[in-house]
Amino acid sequence: GVAAGSASADAAEVTWRLTSSFPKSLDLLYGGAELFARQVGAITGGRFRIDVFPPGDIVPGLGALDAVGAGTVEACQTELDYYYGKDPAFALPTAFPFGMNAREQTAYALAGGLDATNALLADYGAIAYPAGNTGAQMGGFFRREIRSAGDLAGLKIRAGGLAGRVLQKLGAVPAQTPRGEIVAALGAGTLDAVTWVGPYDDARIDEGGKLQKVAPYYYYPGWWRGGSMVHVVFNKAKHDALKEEFKAALRTAALSTHAQVLASYDAANPGALKKLVIGGAELRAFPQDLLEAAYKASGEVYKEISDANPRFKSMLDAAIAFRADQYLWWQVSEYTFDNFMIRQRARG
Amino acid sequence: GVAAGSASADAAEVTWRLTSSFPKSLDLLYGGAELFARQVGAITGGRFRIDVFPPGDIVPGLGALDAVGAGTVEACQTELDYYYGKDPAFALPTAFPFGMNAREQTAYALAGGLDATNALLADYGAIAYPAGNTGAQMGGFFRREIRSAGDLAGLKIRAGGLAGRVLQKLGAVPAQTPRGEIVAALGAGTLDAVTWVGPYDDARIDEGGKLQKVAPYYYYPGWWRGGSMVHVVFNKAKHDALKEEFKAALRTAALSTHAQVLASYDAANPGALKKLVIGGAELRAFPQDLLEAAYKASGEVYKEISDANPRFKSMLDAAIAFRADQYLWWQVSEYTFDNFMIRQRARG
Repeated sequence: GVAAGSASADAAEVTWRLTSSFPKSLDLLYGGAELFARQVGAITGGRFRIDVFPPGDIVPGLGALDAVGAGTVEACQTELDYYYGKDPAFALPTAFPFGMNAREQTAYALAGGLDATNALLADYGAIAYPAGNTGAQMGGFFRREIRSAGDLAGLKIRAGGLAGRVLQKLGAVPAQTPRGEIVAALGAGTLDAVTWVGPYDDARIDEGGKLQKVAPYYYYPGWWRGGSMVHVVFNKAKHDALKEEFKAALRTAALSTHAQVLASYDAANPGALKKLVIGGAELRAFPQDLLEAAYKASGEVYKEISDANPRFKSMLDAAIAFRADQYLWWQVSEYTFDNFMIRQRARG
Repeated sequence: GVAAGSASADAAEVTWRLTSSFPKSLDLLYGGAELFARQVGAITGGRFRIDVFPPGDIVPGLGALDAVGAGTVEACQTELDYYYGKDPAFALPTAFPFGMNAREQTAYALAGGLDATNALLADYGAIAYPAGNTGAQMGGFFRREIRSAGDLAGLKIRAGGLAGRVLQKLGAVPAQTPRGEIVAALGAGTLDAVTWVGPYDDARIDEGGKLQKVAPYYYYPGWWRGGSMVHVVFNKAKHDALKEEFKAALRTAALSTHAQVLASYDAANPGALKKLVIGGAELRAFPQDLLEAAYKASGEVYKEISDANPRFKSMLDAAIAFRADQYLWWQVSEYTFDNFMIRQRARG
């Protein structure tokens, strides 16, 4: 391991560096990396120490996987879809348009999806475990109301990866606006809409509440992310060289973190949603014809990529087959329970 | 710790016995206890060993909490609502009629619900962590169709705890039929309906498929269990005397198990549901007026218990306030995402 240069590192048999792709401002995600490291330290009595670094301290956020593969750092916490440019298959373990909800994603990962992810990551010298989820994301803030799929034509929307490709098919223009410039770009009209995460993180893009002033229409659902899975990723050779109890510590701490990060989003989102609405955000459901057009466009994008990329095709086909079975069951008890509870709540 | 009498126990600094309340036939639940113990062993390099015992080997399933409190065993895996007879407040951490779904339950536990649970358990010399969930349960198998709330009058239904009290208010007669006698009792008409778990466990009540022959109407949702949380419970004095890294191992392994058990149910339920339907089970939604009558009756039961039991009242009120906020958010992105996916699936 890399020496951390700290006195308390002396107790450690192994000290690793973990670079997060998430800025500290995404505190539930970044906090998940700290929680993961804290648990590994605690369950090993301090013998396995992991130091967590924000993006930029060692490598940029999007450079995390390369740094892990090269052994510059031993570990990172990231969204695998950030590496969509290397291979579109990297999008799939994080989320894909009209994919699965967070619970279904976890079930899929542990029923075989993670093995496929790690077969892909092995080519990059890495191995991963699930370590969090944001839950279903929001559709983001729009300057104008969207009354049908046609209203997307020409709109500049901050979105990337598979979602960006689908939006492009619908006539929108995907943009990559840095977080700090979002409000100004929306105000100036150089950006028409921004997709971000969900209420908790969305409410923190601009603490002053200007975001929902310049782009008041707050759309749902975020059909490109029914859930968004986070992973911790390790250099595979260094992982494999660990003694068994340290390997077990990584896996167990990752899955424990996985449960806790989603729980922290679930607990934080309701209050943030209220705050946004009080601050002027107007909740709007995406029109049904837009969802249907996006579903159809997603299928076209999947076919285009699958035709050129057998691994993407095999990973996607397996995920879609699992999804079909999941919703067969979900529509029975889970969905009807939630349906009744939502209606009772509305009646007060 | 108690010596386990096995040669490999020699490597252990601490050996504990964990008694499960679940028979091995509920293999995803019982397997959760084994998974928990395996993880504690693995992350401590074998220094903390936990031996798992099925109900009856040391104490009966429903004697698990008493055995832990008395120190007969150090640990158990159980549903806290099994101790409803000691205090109705024990029902709340597991599930309550029209409570929360599995994800909301986890969010609530980690946002404060677990602290309230452990304040209750401290009076019984115990401390607990979440260690699994079955997801939303089914309403069970009925011999005859239920067309309205009135059809419950006089029906003998296998159900207990809070659900049993609510069903009683609706005119039904709760029964405690042992698993092995369910099919015969339904066949003889000494039982009219049986609530059990969800498709995976329900399909295993009678592997020969007789259950859905004698009671073919398979109802949903299981409004008394939007999720059903499992806990691992430890003798508090023995827990508190552990060194810090072993305490951390218990907590981290429990939360890792929590994620994995729910994932295993989610993965297993769709196939089991198909098998039940192919075998003759006819899916039926509970009529809306029954759900509304049950919701109203639940409120009456809650008021009766709360009037006599301040702890039940404070635990329930906090859970209900959290539930209201959860569904405020859930109805937005989570629910509309699932709604669209379910409708798309039905269209093929």
